[in-house]
Amino acid sequence: MSATPLSMAAPQSFPMRYGVLLYPGFQALDVFGPLDVFTSLSQFHPLHLSIISKTMDPIPTKLGASQNGSQFAQSVLPTHTFENAPPLDILLVPGGLGNRPPSDMEPYILYIQAVYPDLKYLLTVCTGSYLAARTGILDGKRATTNKKAFREIATAYPKVNWVAQARWVADENIWTSSGVAAGMDLALSFIAKVYGDDLATSISDSLEYERHEDADWDPFATRHGLV
Amino acid sequence: MSATPLSMAAPQSFPMRYGVLLYPGFQALDVFGPLDVFTSLSQFHPLHLSIISKTMDPIPTKLGASQNGSQFAQSVLPTHTFENAPPLDILLVPGGLGNRPPSDMEPYILYIQAVYPDLKYLLTVCTGSYLAARTGILDGKRATTNKKAFREIATAYPKVNWVAQARWVADENIWTSSGVAAGMDLALSFIAKVYGDDLATSISDSLEYERHEDADWDPFATRHGLV
Repeated sequence: MSATPLSMAAPQSFPMRYGVLLYPGFQALDVFGPLDVFTSLSQFHPLHLSIISKTMDPIPTKLGASQNGSQFAQSVLPTHTFENAPPLDILLVPGGLGNRPPSDMEPYILYIQAVYPDLKYLLTVCTGSYLAARTGILDGKRATTNKKAFREIATAYPKVNWVAQARWVADENIWTSSGVAAGMDLALSFIAKVYGDDLATSISDSLEYERHEDADWDPFATRHGLV
Repeated sequence: MSATPLSMAAPQSFPMRYGVLLYPGFQALDVFGPLDVFTSLSQFHPLHLSIISKTMDPIPTKLGASQNGSQFAQSVLPTHTFENAPPLDILLVPGGLGNRPPSDMEPYILYIQAVYPDLKYLLTVCTGSYLAARTGILDGKRATTNKKAFREIATAYPKVNWVAQARWVADENIWTSSGVAAGMDLALSFIAKVYGDDLATSISDSLEYERHEDADWDPFATRHGLV
């Protein structure tokens, strides 16, 4: 018998329920790079997105004014709080300066710990893996993170097998990417792996994004003195 | 006499007042690609961002539900309406399916026409140049746009000198980019030109983005059958 065509595959076999965790001071491109890729995917698969935060208040990219007087924040509306967020197949955790001390990230860490056992995949971008590391679920797993923050994070969480030179790392159901723009390559490679390579190519062509398909491609590890 | 060092240059010589025009159905990466680049710039120059729309309502990336049942919208809060937006040096106009008929884009077109004479620069991403073309200010100028929509837009606005193969095009004070991800290359090259090449390199390294520095680099023109 011939193989079942993709269009005949059971739709429920594909992850559909996406969530993104947002906190004040998130890095916008960590979120909207992957989300634009998944928005494109939602034309081909029926996907649902929840934008999850501690409260329903708009979530700004900046914590207060910049020291040099810059006012350059953007604010995104959540759709759910930790209390009423629906079950998810995939949780995307972005990075951003807002997840560093003295920010109280405890509610976010508890949420990740609570939902991880029921997720199909956890995806982190940039220092999103710093948040994931604080939950303990990266212990014993391979992971990467923003290259400028790499040494500090790797030193603080030595039970994680941090990979210095990687555009992204996939270990079981946890995918972690390097800094900011690397999230787009993570998202496209995730789609190639889970939904099919043709879809990933079609989406990157449509977004006019030159995708890096090699997980080891990482000139920034060198530029930031890590290798 | 030796040249004045950059750090001694009068700060007012650099554009500081940024605005982005948002409408329902904008493409998120058209906005947040360049904005994350300019957010990084705002660490080095005191910049101000206004997010401008027709009303103060949250602005969604999707117009209604998708035909296949997908619900994958994100909503961004404006800071100003056309009535109270401050004077700008730079206006960024993103693309997105929301600017196509039957959407009523007349208020946006009138706003661009009204502010353009006082802008230092107009920047468009993707089909943002379709909106700019409708104002008439691209007539006689070189410009580019999303490669999938190129033929349709070029046919509809023949007074514009549309360039099929270009990552971005700069003609006098109007910079237009190709589709979606091309906006990041436009923003970085704009910074290189206006604020200095070292800053552009520092920002792209920090965002871990491999910048395309050649305005003629455009494999998508070929892939979409334009050259």
